[in-house]
Amino acid sequence: MKIKMGQIQMHITDDKKANIQKADRLIDKVVKQGADIVVLPEMFNCPYTSSSFPKYAETEGGDTYQFLSEKAREKDIYLFGGSIPEKTMDNKIYNTCYVFDRTGNKIGKHRKTHLFDINIKGGQVFRESDTLSPGNDATVVETEFCKMGVMICYDIRFPEFARLMALKGAKVIIVPGAFNMTTGPAHWEILFRTRAVDNQVFTVGTSPARDVNGVYVSYANSIVVSPWGTVINRFDGEETVCVTEIDLDDVYNIRQQLPVLEQRRTDLY
Amino acid sequence: MKIKMGQIQMHITDDKKANIQKADRLIDKVVKQGADIVVLPEMFNCPYTSSSFPKYAETEGGDTYQFLSEKAREKDIYLFGGSIPEKTMDNKIYNTCYVFDRTGNKIGKHRKTHLFDINIKGGQVFRESDTLSPGNDATVVETEFCKMGVMICYDIRFPEFARLMALKGAKVIIVPGAFNMTTGPAHWEILFRTRAVDNQVFTVGTSPARDVNGVYVSYANSIVVSPWGTVINRFDGEETVCVTEIDLDDVYNIRQQLPVLEQRRTDLY
Repeated sequence: MKIKMGQIQMHITDDKKANIQKADRLIDKVVKQGADIVVLPEMFNCPYTSSSFPKYAETEGGDTYQFLSEKAREKDIYLFGGSIPEKTMDNKIYNTCYVFDRTGNKIGKHRKTHLFDINIKGGQVFRESDTLSPGNDATVVETEFCKMGVMICYDIRFPEFARLMALKGAKVIIVPGAFNMTTGPAHWEILFRTRAVDNQVFTVGTSPARDVNGVYVSYANSIVVSPWGTVINRFDGEETVCVTEIDLDDVYNIRQQLPVLEQRRTDLY
Repeated sequence: MKIKMGQIQMHITDDKKANIQKADRLIDKVVKQGADIVVLPEMFNCPYTSSSFPKYAETEGGDTYQFLSEKAREKDIYLFGGSIPEKTMDNKIYNTCYVFDRTGNKIGKHRKTHLFDINIKGGQVFRESDTLSPGNDATVVETEFCKMGVMICYDIRFPEFARLMALKGAKVIIVPGAFNMTTGPAHWEILFRTRAVDNQVFTVGTSPARDVNGVYVSYANSIVVSPWGTVINRFDGEETVCVTEIDLDDVYNIRQQLPVLEQRRTDLY
C-alpha cells in the first residue's frame, strides 16, 4: 500500500498569524501535489526560543488547533500539525503535536517527552525545561494506512522511545523536529536512518526552513527514510514543500527477511 | 586518558593452524605500532559456515584459547580474541569471544547472544542457529582504562543490548563482526555510528578481510567511531592491521554537554 507523504519545510517568523497563513498556503500547494498526509514542522506558529513558548501558547481548541482541524477536513488529508506550544489549565506549557484525520477529527496528540536541555562547548546551548513540561506517552495514532508513531525532535535521540512505538504497531514514525547547526550536521541523518533500520519503519522528519539570521538556526534537511535505512528524500535549507511516495509493503518485506523485532532477547532486556 | 586500539583485519582460511599463525604474526605487527589493546575478527580460526562451527569448535582452554592467553601475556596487551566456535560438555556450540588481560588472565568471555538468521531475497541467506546456541549475557569487562562492552556482529542490531552495556558502565564497545556484502554496505557504518551516538561510547568493529572467492564474503571495513558518531578510522577490504588512538576524555566531555543517558525516561521504558 502506497502513501503520498507531504512535508512542509517553512520559514517561521515572530508573527503567529503570518505563520498560520503561510502554513495554509503551503498545505494547499502540497495537497495539489497529491499528498494523503501532510506534516508541518516543530513549533510552526512560534519562534523557537524558551521565552516565546509561554507567549504563543494556546489551550487545546485554540486558534491554531481550529485552523489545523478545519484544514484537514477541507483538504481531505491526515494532518500532523508539526508542533505548537500548548497551555493547560494548571499553567503548564507543552511542545505538542496535534494529529487530525480527513474529517478534521483529532486522532491523537503527542507532547514532547524528552526536553532539549543541552550545553555544547562552543556550540548550541538550550534549556527547553526552563518553560516547558514534558509529556508522558509514546504516542501512536491509527490511520487508514497503518499505525503511525509521533515524536518531536529530541525524542528521536532515545532508541527506547522509537522501539516502544514499533512494538505498539507503528510502521511509520513522524517526527516534527528542528535540529540546529551543531547537532544537525552531526546526527540528524544517522538518527533517522538508524531508528528506521532498528525498527524497520519509515521515518519522516519535518523541520523549519533554515533562517541564518533567526534566533534559532534550524538545520532544516527534512527527510524521509525507508525501513532499510535508505534516504528516499532529503530537502536542503530552503523553504519548500514536497510529496514522497512510500510503500508500506517495504516494511512487511524487510521484517520477513530480517526479523529483528522477533529476534529481540526480551528475556535479557 | 588515551588508548591505542589495535585491530587485525585478516583473511581466514579453512586451515585452523594457519589462521592462528596468521593472527600470531599480525598481533606482533600491530603491537610494534604501539597497541595497548588488540582486537581480532569474528570466527578468526574457522570458515564462516554453519557446518564448520562444530568441526572447528574447541572447549574452553583449547589450542586457540591457549594461544590467545599466551600471546596477551607475551606482548603485554589486552587481547579481545575475535571469536571462535566454543564447544561445551553438553554438546552445545557457541560463537565466543574470550578476553585476556596483559598477564594472559581471562577477564571475560562473550557468547554471541543474537544469532544471525536471515533470509534476504536475492541477497544473503544464513541460519547460525542451525549449529550454534545463543549466549545470555550483556558482557562488560574491566580494563585498566575503563569498562568495555563486548558483543559479536549481529548483536549490534539490537539497540537495547548496547544500551545495557552503557548502563553497566561501558565507555567502549568492542565488536568482532563479519557483515556481508548485502547488509554491510547498507548498515555496517550507521549501526556503529548510532550505537556510539546513542550511548556516547566508542565503538570498535573488527572484521575478517574480504575474500571475494570465499564461502562467506565479508564486507570487511573494520571501523572505529567516536562517542560523537565520527568515523575515526575505517579500513577497506584488504588484509591489514592498524592502531587508532582514542581519547576517553571525549566520552566524559560529550556526556556532560549532551546528557542523554541521564535524560532517559526510565518511567516510560
